[in-house]
Amino acid sequence: MASRQRSGEDSLIARYFKPIATDPGAFGLDDDAAALKAHGEDIVVTTDGIVEGVHFLPDDPPDSIARKALRVNLSDIAAKGAMPAGFVLTLALRGVDEAWLAAFARGLGEDANSFGCPLLGGDTVSTPGPQMVSITAFGRVPEGRMVRRSGARAGDRVMVTGTIGDAALGLDILKGGPVAAALSGDPAAKEMLVSRYRVPQPRNALAKAVREHASAAMDVSDGLAGDFAKLCAASGVSAGIDTPLIPTSAAAAGLLAKGVVGLEALISGGDDYEILCAVPEAHVAAFIQEAGRAGVAVTAIGTVTGERGMPRFLDAQGTEIRLRHLSYSHF
Amino acid sequence: MASRQRSGEDSLIARYFKPIATDPGAFGLDDDAAALKAHGEDIVVTTDGIVEGVHFLPDDPPDSIARKALRVNLSDIAAKGAMPAGFVLTLALRGVDEAWLAAFARGLGEDANSFGCPLLGGDTVSTPGPQMVSITAFGRVPEGRMVRRSGARAGDRVMVTGTIGDAALGLDILKGGPVAAALSGDPAAKEMLVSRYRVPQPRNALAKAVREHASAAMDVSDGLAGDFAKLCAASGVSAGIDTPLIPTSAAAAGLLAKGVVGLEALISGGDDYEILCAVPEAHVAAFIQEAGRAGVAVTAIGTVTGERGMPRFLDAQGTEIRLRHLSYSHF
Repeated sequence: MASRQRSGEDSLIARYFKPIATDPGAFGLDDDAAALKAHGEDIVVTTDGIVEGVHFLPDDPPDSIARKALRVNLSDIAAKGAMPAGFVLTLALRGVDEAWLAAFARGLGEDANSFGCPLLGGDTVSTPGPQMVSITAFGRVPEGRMVRRSGARAGDRVMVTGTIGDAALGLDILKGGPVAAALSGDPAAKEMLVSRYRVPQPRNALAKAVREHASAAMDVSDGLAGDFAKLCAASGVSAGIDTPLIPTSAAAAGLLAKGVVGLEALISGGDDYEILCAVPEAHVAAFIQEAGRAGVAVTAIGTVTGERGMPRFLDAQGTEIRLRHLSYSHF
Repeated sequence: MASRQRSGEDSLIARYFKPIATDPGAFGLDDDAAALKAHGEDIVVTTDGIVEGVHFLPDDPPDSIARKALRVNLSDIAAKGAMPAGFVLTLALRGVDEAWLAAFARGLGEDANSFGCPLLGGDTVSTPGPQMVSITAFGRVPEGRMVRRSGARAGDRVMVTGTIGDAALGLDILKGGPVAAALSGDPAAKEMLVSRYRVPQPRNALAKAVREHASAAMDVSDGLAGDFAKLCAASGVSAGIDTPLIPTSAAAAGLLAKGVVGLEALISGGDDYEILCAVPEAHVAAFIQEAGRAGVAVTAIGTVTGERGMPRFLDAQGTEIRLRHLSYSHF
């Protein structure tokens, strides 16, 4: 795209990606680089790659692969309180599959348009191995206003958007695990959980509320438990999480109640792409109100405490639950 | 790094990459994103990935792999007339090889420091396939001043930095091709050519001169012939290139003279990472003078002509040479 254009690559790019690179700073993908206007704001930069066999499955629909690749980055932009400004794409492909590329570009273009995050450039390379989609996305925030992981303070409420654990259950279904068997009579629930794995719903509508009210925030990508432990570590605090308050979908709650899965699978499973944040008590009402206006469900699940340490996950009796795994690890 | 931190990944990042992420906007790689200050300038964005077996070889020294990954992007920043502002890194690794990572991070940190282009964040993922290093790099230019491919006009001189074709010869040596055999008695020449393939010398020192004097510019990454054809197409012009004027190293000139390689291999081979630009006649003297001050060799190799079309490559008699391949293509 913008850079490393090569003859075979050029025609690919012209056919599939030029039509979605509508921002003037993309120069129609005809140059070596893009130009991003800053308008006096800070540029928030985040990068996330998804790998075939790890973050998506070889027979996932190509448009959903494109959407996931962009949305995992949009989720970081939202959690930092920033507005999407654009992205660049690196595609490592085994070869040219025109139908696959056409569907991939269509999904990417639709999401770029609906989230207001234009394609600015990219690179296409060949690989003999698993395919990979790597995106670097940009957001804009007023100078110095990016919401960090490190601002949580004792007394802040811990809030999370949406529901937790659905994507991990969806992956289990795609792999033919116990969740697939338990839901064999409920295709609608299976479809909902699989779609939560394949196409995250980043909470960009909440970005302004996060920026105005959260003391610390991040997105939940590798499991609520492990990600929240990182937020606590960055802030030098601990917290008590009331696990019965952790929001789950009806499907997930049913599987929990039947003992098909345990709580740990839900809160350490990853791929949720919800926003987890700390909100000072005085801001909680306004934050909830603005979230409601933005159409994003938010739930209070615990309270930050002052001493530095691992967060404590408590059951309905207030007894601490011991977790073996906090999050998904690549290595 | 900045994003998608996972337990095993976290310790990798802390050990090898935190020490080189010294820019305040990198937040010590402890957050989901980085913040890039724009200072009222445009942010130039470029992205280039290198794949094992394609752009580097499995037993290339890890520090040179890191340098190449960063420098191919620095080369784009330079060609656009921009000053380096930072970069993010996506590493797709088969597993954790501590010695490899330590050497990779050392090479990356040294180059980030010497080119003034700090590590801002990144992502580490596992892959069962070939390893890949994808970098998105940022530069700063005064508003609206990024040098495009599209500004060349009839009468402009075509200028190129350094020497052309060495990297393609170096790759032939690493693959045990005819160049390796022809240079079996000249280890110094072999080493020079291999190092030109492994560690490009991006011309960032020339960025200001390019911005002030070139009407169009790009870096030569996929072969002088094909890349220049793209610049002509983007500008709606053609050009005559006097191929005897194309600068070559003594080693390359010797191989040409002996008939070991032809001119086509040199000008369509790729991996040069030199700057190719069009300079209006009135700016040529100043451009050459500033290049001299910056310590970068520049050579005039032809003249832009008005009619739109493929550039013509002429021999010493002024006869057009027919090229079968213009550049390296991935697909």
